[in-house]
Amino acid sequence: MNIGETLLRLEALSGYSSGGSAPRIKLDANENLFLPREAMLGYLREAVESSDPRLYPATESEELQTAIAKRLGVDADQVVIGGGGDQLINLLVTSLTRPGEGLLSLTPTFSMYKVAASIRGVESQDCPLAPDLTLDPSRLLAAVAGNTRMIEIVNPNNPTGVQFEEGAVKKVVQGFEGPVLVDEAYADYGRYSLVGCCSGLENLMILRTFSKAYGLAGMRLGYLVAGPRLASALRGVQDLYPASSVSIRMGLRMMRETHVVDEAVSRLKKERSRLASELSQIPGVVMIPSDANFVTFKTQAEAASIQAKLSAEGVSVRLVRGIPGLGDCLRVTVAPRPLMAEFLTRLRGALG
Amino acid sequence: MNIGETLLRLEALSGYSSGGSAPRIKLDANENLFLPREAMLGYLREAVESSDPRLYPATESEELQTAIAKRLGVDADQVVIGGGGDQLINLLVTSLTRPGEGLLSLTPTFSMYKVAASIRGVESQDCPLAPDLTLDPSRLLAAVAGNTRMIEIVNPNNPTGVQFEEGAVKKVVQGFEGPVLVDEAYADYGRYSLVGCCSGLENLMILRTFSKAYGLAGMRLGYLVAGPRLASALRGVQDLYPASSVSIRMGLRMMRETHVVDEAVSRLKKERSRLASELSQIPGVVMIPSDANFVTFKTQAEAASIQAKLSAEGVSVRLVRGIPGLGDCLRVTVAPRPLMAEFLTRLRGALG
Repeated sequence: MNIGETLLRLEALSGYSSGGSAPRIKLDANENLFLPREAMLGYLREAVESSDPRLYPATESEELQTAIAKRLGVDADQVVIGGGGDQLINLLVTSLTRPGEGLLSLTPTFSMYKVAASIRGVESQDCPLAPDLTLDPSRLLAAVAGNTRMIEIVNPNNPTGVQFEEGAVKKVVQGFEGPVLVDEAYADYGRYSLVGCCSGLENLMILRTFSKAYGLAGMRLGYLVAGPRLASALRGVQDLYPASSVSIRMGLRMMRETHVVDEAVSRLKKERSRLASELSQIPGVVMIPSDANFVTFKTQAEAASIQAKLSAEGVSVRLVRGIPGLGDCLRVTVAPRPLMAEFLTRLRGALG
Repeated sequence: MNIGETLLRLEALSGYSSGGSAPRIKLDANENLFLPREAMLGYLREAVESSDPRLYPATESEELQTAIAKRLGVDADQVVIGGGGDQLINLLVTSLTRPGEGLLSLTPTFSMYKVAASIRGVESQDCPLAPDLTLDPSRLLAAVAGNTRMIEIVNPNNPTGVQFEEGAVKKVVQGFEGPVLVDEAYADYGRYSLVGCCSGLENLMILRTFSKAYGLAGMRLGYLVAGPRLASALRGVQDLYPASSVSIRMGLRMMRETHVVDEAVSRLKKERSRLASELSQIPGVVMIPSDANFVTFKTQAEAASIQAKLSAEGVSVRLVRGIPGLGDCLRVTVAPRPLMAEFLTRLRGALG
């Protein structure tokens, strides 16, 4: 294959569109605005003091493994440190699937899974959610094809915000012979986590991130939890240095500030209820009850046009297409009251 | 494939061994000790002040692209930002090769290439260096097999430290129809760079890192330079956020401190000469003249035993096996004089 053909192949794979300019009120990326910037900067200033940018990360990575394990109540050898959710998704797709094999997803799901599969020539296999947006384990397991190598379930799901029934997720893990990834990026905002089940289910992998409840989206830090043997095998294929030493130290710092994290989660949940009640009072709005740090809803007017109107007012929300039973919707990050108040005002204006 | 088979497959791929405890004098990872830690911390403190750890990296990545392009004298659209050399190597192997296809390397080379290929089921194809350790383009091109999809050349080479002739590297790029990656991690310590050739050679990709001359090994930051079309296609498959926002801001800061970087490179080169002259006076030592920030040499006594003796004294150096014409050697990072003086004392003791 010459370089011209290579270029055509690469260009066909392109998964990302460029960002554009920054909105005034950014409610499209589920960042954590309940943790005050000044407090976070304070932690970061301290994390920096113990860093040496000249040296590759060393023992701080194992310290973080231990701190995470302690917080979750698992063993340290069940934890695999990574450089943000995307890095870990790439690692799993790369090391657990091969071109021509399939990655089965309950759709719609976090877009990165399709991108990671497509760049690697892995087949994305979809099992569309039923209109009630819950997980039917037998339906998902029935969608397993001969070449399906891995199943991924985002739980709570993105973009719906629904956390599936715990028993239903476990049934999928028990009913599939290969690895099952449960992406718990939003689990801190939900009702439960499956991390405690990893030691008993050797094909279960849980992905967690510091980008949401821990407020470190800019730091690119995440981790996997799995049974000791699977976790050890995954550490064996993980990069030597997947995360910055400053990021790791900042992760360690946040593990010492879990009361601050928990308190911010609790404030978000209150604001989520209030937002839900206000949204439901807007005529024509249909809202999906959320277990995440965002709320997805349908408006009577076309979602894309409302998104554009909000954007013109400096408010960015995410357009999510093709939610079963609803069609195109908007997804808005739950943020502190002043931002929600302005969002609601602009939304009412856009709906006119 | 069930989870037991999956585990066996993963375990067979394992590319990394765990680190062990930190040595007193660390001369095994080619970190930059010529940039004083206090100065680097000062830059990092400032970089932090403009960061918001809660938010995903935004426009700072494009600013860095522009600053790098300006420094190198290329166009900003020729630059692809990444999260350290490993992240970029993974990206290239993933997006440019498929299982069963081949990645051809001049060996010995940086170990990460074999690891990245093996995890993806890509065939590592070796063209061993001739005993004079130079690049013979026709010999390398003769090693191209029917399934060879990419060639990689580390230049200056790691672990030899030799920078190949510019014309020889270009002949490889011109003689191969697919993509050629030239890894210039150490080029700041060498005699030339090929970045200026990318606009004219559409199959050439240059990998550069902030980990060496720019002193940011801990920050996980690197980039690719290529022709505009190839660079754009690679940005299309790159992760949205491959590097931490603090790392990107720190990269930007170092781009404003290029005089400090250049001055440290110049001091390293002086120290490298001095080290070379001292090493060559030790009976039985054979040294490879280096264009990098390390020196690789052979001792009369077995390399592994000398490494162990140095390690017992708290001095870590890298054991490199199977250098053509020399066999097993030791690789030592060039560091400021007090560290080199102690290294030489301990080495003489170990050989004594």
